[in-house]
Amino acid sequence: MDYLDSINRALNAVTYPSEPQGLYEPIAYALSMGGKRLRPTLVLLACAIYRNDPEVAMPAALAIETYHNHTLLHDDLMDHADMRRGKPTVHVKWNENTAVLSGDTMLIAAFRHLIDTNCPNKERMLSLFARTATEICEGQQHDVNFENRIDVTEEEYIEMIRLKTSVLLGCAAKLGALAGNAPDEDADTLYRFAEKIGLAFQLQDDYLDVYGDPAVFGKQIGGDILCGKKTFLLIHALQKADAETRKKLLAILEDKTMEPTLKIRTVTEIYNQLGIPALTLAAIERFYEDARRELDSISVGKEKTAPIWDYACSLLKRQV
Amino acid sequence: MDYLDSINRALNAVTYPSEPQGLYEPIAYALSMGGKRLRPTLVLLACAIYRNDPEVAMPAALAIETYHNHTLLHDDLMDHADMRRGKPTVHVKWNENTAVLSGDTMLIAAFRHLIDTNCPNKERMLSLFARTATEICEGQQHDVNFENRIDVTEEEYIEMIRLKTSVLLGCAAKLGALAGNAPDEDADTLYRFAEKIGLAFQLQDDYLDVYGDPAVFGKQIGGDILCGKKTFLLIHALQKADAETRKKLLAILEDKTMEPTLKIRTVTEIYNQLGIPALTLAAIERFYEDARRELDSISVGKEKTAPIWDYACSLLKRQV
Repeated sequence: MDYLDSINRALNAVTYPSEPQGLYEPIAYALSMGGKRLRPTLVLLACAIYRNDPEVAMPAALAIETYHNHTLLHDDLMDHADMRRGKPTVHVKWNENTAVLSGDTMLIAAFRHLIDTNCPNKERMLSLFARTATEICEGQQHDVNFENRIDVTEEEYIEMIRLKTSVLLGCAAKLGALAGNAPDEDADTLYRFAEKIGLAFQLQDDYLDVYGDPAVFGKQIGGDILCGKKTFLLIHALQKADAETRKKLLAILEDKTMEPTLKIRTVTEIYNQLGIPALTLAAIERFYEDARRELDSISVGKEKTAPIWDYACSLLKRQV
Repeated sequence: MDYLDSINRALNAVTYPSEPQGLYEPIAYALSMGGKRLRPTLVLLACAIYRNDPEVAMPAALAIETYHNHTLLHDDLMDHADMRRGKPTVHVKWNENTAVLSGDTMLIAAFRHLIDTNCPNKERMLSLFARTATEICEGQQHDVNFENRIDVTEEEYIEMIRLKTSVLLGCAAKLGALAGNAPDEDADTLYRFAEKIGLAFQLQDDYLDVYGDPAVFGKQIGGDILCGKKTFLLIHALQKADAETRKKLLAILEDKTMEPTLKIRTVTEIYNQLGIPALTLAAIERFYEDARRELDSISVGKEKTAPIWDYACSLLKRQV
């Protein structure tokens, strides 16, 4: 079942005050930019495992989506990113102070969606949401710290992406389960399921940045290489390379004058020589299988979990 | 009774994770800058009207103080203010991105203090707190909008300072009352009491900026005049002045080359000619009396409300 329409309808139905315009217009703008609405969809899909009226989880879905767009707004400000989904970002269209203040207001609005919900599990939902939001700030800070390091380990990298992106998927699924009065154990299992899907998804993003089909991937191939991002691929390449190759790889990444296409091709060749693509695909496969195992262990029939599984597979562009 | 020590002890006892340091060190720094701890003190004083153990309201007090310091951190960033209480601000000591991210984490931490409390009124406290935080963002935006206007009315100004500063005092008092299981009506009355004290306090700040004793005020006299801030005094002066004086006043305020002492003296003379000091003192007096009336109307004996009244008077530097 496709929840995209009902999520967008619910987002549009949220009425923010008309004044002060300079505060609320950027919020409406940021929330109207669209996207897959992946996280609120996970909320509703998890709730639908336990209830026929998953829309009871809509306040939690709105909280998650509003929160997610708050992080995008502040991240774009911190990254000086001028565009998102083909449109100017808030600090460009308005200014930096607007991005700070409207972003803060969105974070508060996310809490308000949850505070205003009537779920019997509200307290636990609030507690989970607030812990998750803190973890995401930690993940963002780790990501910043990694920029100036060349010795990031796989373990540290996985923990960073877990905090920065996967815990929000876990939180989304668990909020949906809690809104649906799922057994405690199921709610925790669904958290782990979505967290693993998030890890697989992030590693796949790292992989497709280098090996994706440009027509399908939607982003420019090699973007991570050009900005020297510490991806799963680069971290493993730096670990596996001999001293000479490692030196060469670092020199290429730091070379600001190298022609981009050549830079991407040369780094890709090093990745290929070191067996990085197979190693990355194997790691994705492990997280994917972990997620499948988690989902299989919950207390309901497979026909109930099929929609959330199919959705996860569609995200990972896999045949079910 | 002085709650400053117990508030500072409780703030110091909050354990933030040690990692990532770049996220949590600035938070500890911002919260250790000290100050009067006015807002958490109001929480405890309001609770103490109804309970002998007002420390049950400490989580709410910590929420309010953490939230307040989040707003200072983000406001200093937006205002490009380099110093606070004699120390470099977070975006100066670290950088702007740290101010954004650690500031966000403090806002979430404020919610977590309230979420983790055990008060039976927790839901209402969360709801009040979230609404108040939204109002403060609105007040901040109004303040920004006023910078480019010369036709701000008294009514608009009072509403701006109410949102930007007074609702947090109202919220503090009401949170304390709710933590103390005060009757609903008392909780609302204490909100209005503290809100009026906040308005009196803010107008007094405007007044003392021009007419204060530099040795007592603690800030440089005339700072608002030099930066052309739309204070209660300036708004009234612009309204009461004849066309010629108004033109002169605006020209002086916009004159970037005028010697500061001369600028302050000339504007002060215009204020004096227009009777602005008496008018401002009368407005302060009205809010002070409104606050007194609110406090007198609550259901408990005067000996119970004496401490919170004495504290409000000490803030306003008045004889009780």
